[in-house]
Amino acid sequence: MAEGELEAARRCLREFSIEAQELFVGRSVPYLEQPPSPLHFHRDWLCPNKPCIIRNAISHWPALSKWSSAYLRAAVGSKPVSVAVTPHGYADAVFGDRFVMPEERRMPFASLLDLIESRGGAGVSGQRGVFYMQKQCSSLTEELPELTRDVDTEIPWMSKALGKHPDAVNFWLGEEAAVTSLHKDHYENLYCVISGEKHFILLPPSDRPFIPYELYQPATFIQREDGSFDVVDEEAAEKVTRPLLTLSMDDFNSQFLQSEVPWIPVDPLNPDLERYPDYGLARPLHCTVRAGEMLYLPSLWFHHVRQSQGCIAVNYWYDMEFDVKYNYFQLLESLSAVLGKN
Amino acid sequence: MAEGELEAARRCLREFSIEAQELFVGRSVPYLEQPPSPLHFHRDWLCPNKPCIIRNAISHWPALSKWSSAYLRAAVGSKPVSVAVTPHGYADAVFGDRFVMPEERRMPFASLLDLIESRGGAGVSGQRGVFYMQKQCSSLTEELPELTRDVDTEIPWMSKALGKHPDAVNFWLGEEAAVTSLHKDHYENLYCVISGEKHFILLPPSDRPFIPYELYQPATFIQREDGSFDVVDEEAAEKVTRPLLTLSMDDFNSQFLQSEVPWIPVDPLNPDLERYPDYGLARPLHCTVRAGEMLYLPSLWFHHVRQSQGCIAVNYWYDMEFDVKYNYFQLLESLSAVLGKN
Repeated sequence: MAEGELEAARRCLREFSIEAQELFVGRSVPYLEQPPSPLHFHRDWLCPNKPCIIRNAISHWPALSKWSSAYLRAAVGSKPVSVAVTPHGYADAVFGDRFVMPEERRMPFASLLDLIESRGGAGVSGQRGVFYMQKQCSSLTEELPELTRDVDTEIPWMSKALGKHPDAVNFWLGEEAAVTSLHKDHYENLYCVISGEKHFILLPPSDRPFIPYELYQPATFIQREDGSFDVVDEEAAEKVTRPLLTLSMDDFNSQFLQSEVPWIPVDPLNPDLERYPDYGLARPLHCTVRAGEMLYLPSLWFHHVRQSQGCIAVNYWYDMEFDVKYNYFQLLESLSAVLGKN
Repeated sequence: MAEGELEAARRCLREFSIEAQELFVGRSVPYLEQPPSPLHFHRDWLCPNKPCIIRNAISHWPALSKWSSAYLRAAVGSKPVSVAVTPHGYADAVFGDRFVMPEERRMPFASLLDLIESRGGAGVSGQRGVFYMQKQCSSLTEELPELTRDVDTEIPWMSKALGKHPDAVNFWLGEEAAVTSLHKDHYENLYCVISGEKHFILLPPSDRPFIPYELYQPATFIQREDGSFDVVDEEAAEKVTRPLLTLSMDDFNSQFLQSEVPWIPVDPLNPDLERYPDYGLARPLHCTVRAGEMLYLPSLWFHHVRQSQGCIAVNYWYDMEFDVKYNYFQLLESLSAVLGKN
């Protein structure tokens, strides 16, 4: 009797995901050929929580033509920046039985360019490590303010649509081997590619019931002098402070006082469906965002990101509204925990 | 084991409702002193699915000063209109073991005014019946187009916010005893009071798990010549056509091919908590909308409506968007059915 009701409740979650796809998610990410007005953006994309790729929204940015390696070296080559270093490109991801964060290394921006250019897209990491400038504490405005003259420090129609300025504007530069593991953020995200391309795998919040979370001991990669990497467990004290310095992913922040970190063990490029069969019910969307394009990545959408070698991007984060959609998503979270088989 | 999981899932629904109140629903319906801009309305009220009462949105309408009984008799007194007639004021409501619809009577508008004025607010029905002009097939523009010169046939900022015109503009005139039973609609609703006042009891969609539905044989009140009322069961054939003529409430329409009608048996004025204990967990908001005020009643909010004797109102219905919030609500509907104890 109770078993039957439980199975019926699980069926509700499966039908919910199917209906989401039919009602509004679709099977691919649509393109807009022009940036929308604030009202249109709010009505057609932000309110329904739908991603889109917007063309011609940043075509006026000098960065698109100016940000060559030579220009960047001249403008900001000597500036120290924070770079995530990992053995295989996975920063803030499950590795073995740990949630492993990258070594956070300070280096001159020109040294990062040297490293990326010397590799040239092979994507093989070996002993040297994989480098990714991915710090999300408004790294563009904080670390490389000289470059803000070549972009807009806010997106006018987005600021007007939301009635607020971005909470962070981040600069991204990394190697082909660098991967952002599947996660979600409590932010509305406008992700603009300046050069190269980004490959996104997106899963709508309605797929939450099929996305497993497990608890992991947090740890950090530390590179030795010989180039090999140690995995060093976080001490309790560090667990409190480290995320403030290095991570702003909501999944982590909301949990950072716990001793274990909940994270998604599934690799959407190669999901282990024997271990996580429910993930087979998820409906990922794949899209590539090319130079000059902007992805609207809605709050609470799960995303996994790859890129071409040396891809440069700038993204804008705006706090999401913690209202009806957040309320519903929290229900989905708690039901997924109760009804999930993982 | 399964019983424990079921109880945990039910607890998720209870916490969801509490969180809704804390996050965005609040404990009362806020007032706006001026009509909002299209973007502000979309961002602050429509997208978060929050009701509000808007002042000074219709102050320019001639109707507010012109719609005296004498003026209405002169302008449209001879026009035939559709009036719902019931013995006690409850049209489209549970009565005994039936879902009973009103007798739909055609009469000159002046006759309805006569009936309402002769009673003068006593609210006692007796043998004569309770009269309510409440037809929702754009009754203002269809039955009383002469009156549209005294109001706006659309609300400019709403049409712009939604990018569409209203699907129906309805005229409401009724007796104090007339009650609209608790239900919800698939419409965004702007409800404008011209004279008198309307008393709303509102329940957010997040309270759906505590609102019981039961199935009822549909029937219709028919008044005899002596003034008493019969309850006449609908025949199968009538069940198909009648709702198209008389009702546009979504709960009914979506089900009208079934032989039984799902309806809410709870009277929020006097809920039977012994029979429906879960209703005690619901969080109703009470508000009164006075002459010159406009209520934004968001889609999928449950509402129960009363009024002062002879209250006149005009409302605008806009199809809701069947996107993320609808998707989530459907999940809530199906989970309520599976996990509900009623």
